[in-house]
Amino acid sequence: MGMNSRIEAAIAQAVAVGQGRGAVPQRLSSALGYATAPGGARIRPTILTSVALACGDDQPKLTDAAASALELIHCASLVHDDLPCFDDADTRRGKPSVHKAYSEPLAVLTGDSLIVLAFEILARQSGLAPDRVAQMILILSQRTGMPGGICAGQGWESEAEIDLSAYHQAKTGALFIAATQMGAVAAGQEAEPWFELGARIGEAFQVADDLRDALYDADTLGKPVGQDDLHGRPNAVTLLGVQGAISRLKDILGGAIASIPSCRGEAQLADMVRRYAERLTPVAPNVAASRSNV
Amino acid sequence: MGMNSRIEAAIAQAVAVGQGRGAVPQRLSSALGYATAPGGARIRPTILTSVALACGDDQPKLTDAAASALELIHCASLVHDDLPCFDDADTRRGKPSVHKAYSEPLAVLTGDSLIVLAFEILARQSGLAPDRVAQMILILSQRTGMPGGICAGQGWESEAEIDLSAYHQAKTGALFIAATQMGAVAAGQEAEPWFELGARIGEAFQVADDLRDALYDADTLGKPVGQDDLHGRPNAVTLLGVQGAISRLKDILGGAIASIPSCRGEAQLADMVRRYAERLTPVAPNVAASRSNV
Repeated sequence: MGMNSRIEAAIAQAVAVGQGRGAVPQRLSSALGYATAPGGARIRPTILTSVALACGDDQPKLTDAAASALELIHCASLVHDDLPCFDDADTRRGKPSVHKAYSEPLAVLTGDSLIVLAFEILARQSGLAPDRVAQMILILSQRTGMPGGICAGQGWESEAEIDLSAYHQAKTGALFIAATQMGAVAAGQEAEPWFELGARIGEAFQVADDLRDALYDADTLGKPVGQDDLHGRPNAVTLLGVQGAISRLKDILGGAIASIPSCRGEAQLADMVRRYAERLTPVAPNVAASRSNV
Repeated sequence: MGMNSRIEAAIAQAVAVGQGRGAVPQRLSSALGYATAPGGARIRPTILTSVALACGDDQPKLTDAAASALELIHCASLVHDDLPCFDDADTRRGKPSVHKAYSEPLAVLTGDSLIVLAFEILARQSGLAPDRVAQMILILSQRTGMPGGICAGQGWESEAEIDLSAYHQAKTGALFIAATQMGAVAAGQEAEPWFELGARIGEAFQVADDLRDALYDADTLGKPVGQDDLHGRPNAVTLLGVQGAISRLKDILGGAIASIPSCRGEAQLADMVRRYAERLTPVAPNVAASRSNV
C-alpha cells in the first residue's frame, strides 16, 4: 500500500470510530464523514508518516493513529474557522462548508467531536506502547490548544497587538511541529530533535502562502503585488518582494533539510521535503525557473 | 484541605496551564479563567473525587488531574451550549456568558481550548501510571465525543426522531459515568463495576431537573405543571406527575447506592450519594416532606 492509501485508510478507520453504529445521531455522524473526506493534500499526516518511516516505523499502528489524529485536528480547525463568526466561508474544498451543508450547531459539534476523537484514537493504541502514546497526546494537545497551539493562533487574531513570532508559530507552525515530533515518537525516537524540521516547514508554508496570495492577486486580479495585507500584518512578499520571498523560501527549506536528525531514512526524508517544496512553490513563470534549486 | 478546596485548587492549576505566561493571546487566556471560575456546584469532580477516595486515592495527583479534566469538559460544553446557534444564552451563573463578555469567536476558541486542555492535563500525569492515564483519556473521550458522549447528546437535538434512551445517556448521563469510572481508575480500580453508579446518578439528575422545571413553573409562573414540554419530549413529571417523579427519584437513588461496588470507603460513598440526593431534590413544600427518606 502506498503512503497516500495508507493515510486515507487510517483516517477513514478513525472517522468510523467516531461515527458509530446503531443508535447514533445520524446527521452529526454524517457530518464527521463530510468534514474529513475527500481531504485536501493531507500534508500533515504525510509529513508525520514520512518521519516515522525515516525512524524505522516499528509500530505502524501508532504511526497510523498519530497521522489520523493530527488530520482530525486539522479538519476540526477548518470546520470551526469556516463558521460565520470567523471566516464565514460558504465553501471548502469545492463543496459547501459544514455549517452550510448541515447547520451551524452541527458544525460546532462536528469540530468538537473531531477534536475529542483525535485523542480517543491515540488513547486506543496505548496498549502497544503507553509511553509513546502519552507523549503523542501531550504533543498534540500542546500544539492544538492554549497557550501555544492553533487555538492560540486563532486567539491572537482577537488581540489589539499581535506578537508576530508567537502568532505564526501557533497558527501555522504548530501542527507541522506536531507532525514531525509525533512521527518520531510513534517510531520510538525523541521528540526534541525534530522540532526544528517541523518549525521550518511551518515557516516555509507561511512564506509560500504569502507568495501564492501575491502571485494570484497580480496574475488574476491585477491588484498590485505587496498591497494585499488587509489586516495590517507584514508578510514575506510585502517585506521582501516576490524574488526575495522565493529566496527566503529556498533558505528555509535548505535549513529544514539540514536540520533533519541523523536517522536511517535521512536521505528519503530529505527527498520528501524537496518534493514538498515543489508543491509549496507557486507555479508562475518567474518561480518555475527557481524550482530546481530548492 | 477539604474536598471543595482540593477540587478548586486542582481546577485553578489546570486552567493556569492553559492560560500560559508571556507571549500569549491575553483575551483568550482571560476567557479560559472566566469560563471556569467561579464554578457551579462542581458536582462531577466531587463525585469523581469521592469515588477515588472510596477506592483508596493512592495517587492523589491522578485524581486531581481527572477531576479537573472532567470539569474543564463540562465548562467547555456550557460555553458552546450558550452560543447564539444553540441556546443563545446571555448569562450563565449570574454573569454574562462567554460570547457576551468576550465575543463569539473567543467563545468558540474557549470551548475548543478547554476540551484540548482536559486531555493535556491528564497526559501530563502519565509518568505516574501510564495505564491508568491512558484508560482515563479513553473514558473521557468516549463520554465527551461521538458517538456516545455529550457531543452526541447535543447532536440528537438536530435529529427528526430521537432515541430517548441514547439521548439521555449521552446528554446527561455521560459525564456522570465518566466521573465514577475515572475516579475508580485514578485509584487503580477497574472502570466497569462503576458504570451503574454513574448512570443512575445521571438518571436521577434528569428526573430532578424535570421536577425543578415543573415546580418552578407551578410556583412562579402559574403555568400548569406537566405542560411545559415545549420540545415534545416526555419528561418524568409529565409521565408520572410530581409525586410519581419524586418516587422515581428515590428509587433511582436507592438503586445508585445499592450499585456501589465493594470498596473500603463504601459507607462514606453511600453518604455522599445521599447528600447529593438532598441537593438534587427541589425545595418545595410537598418535596421537603419526602426528603428524609431519600
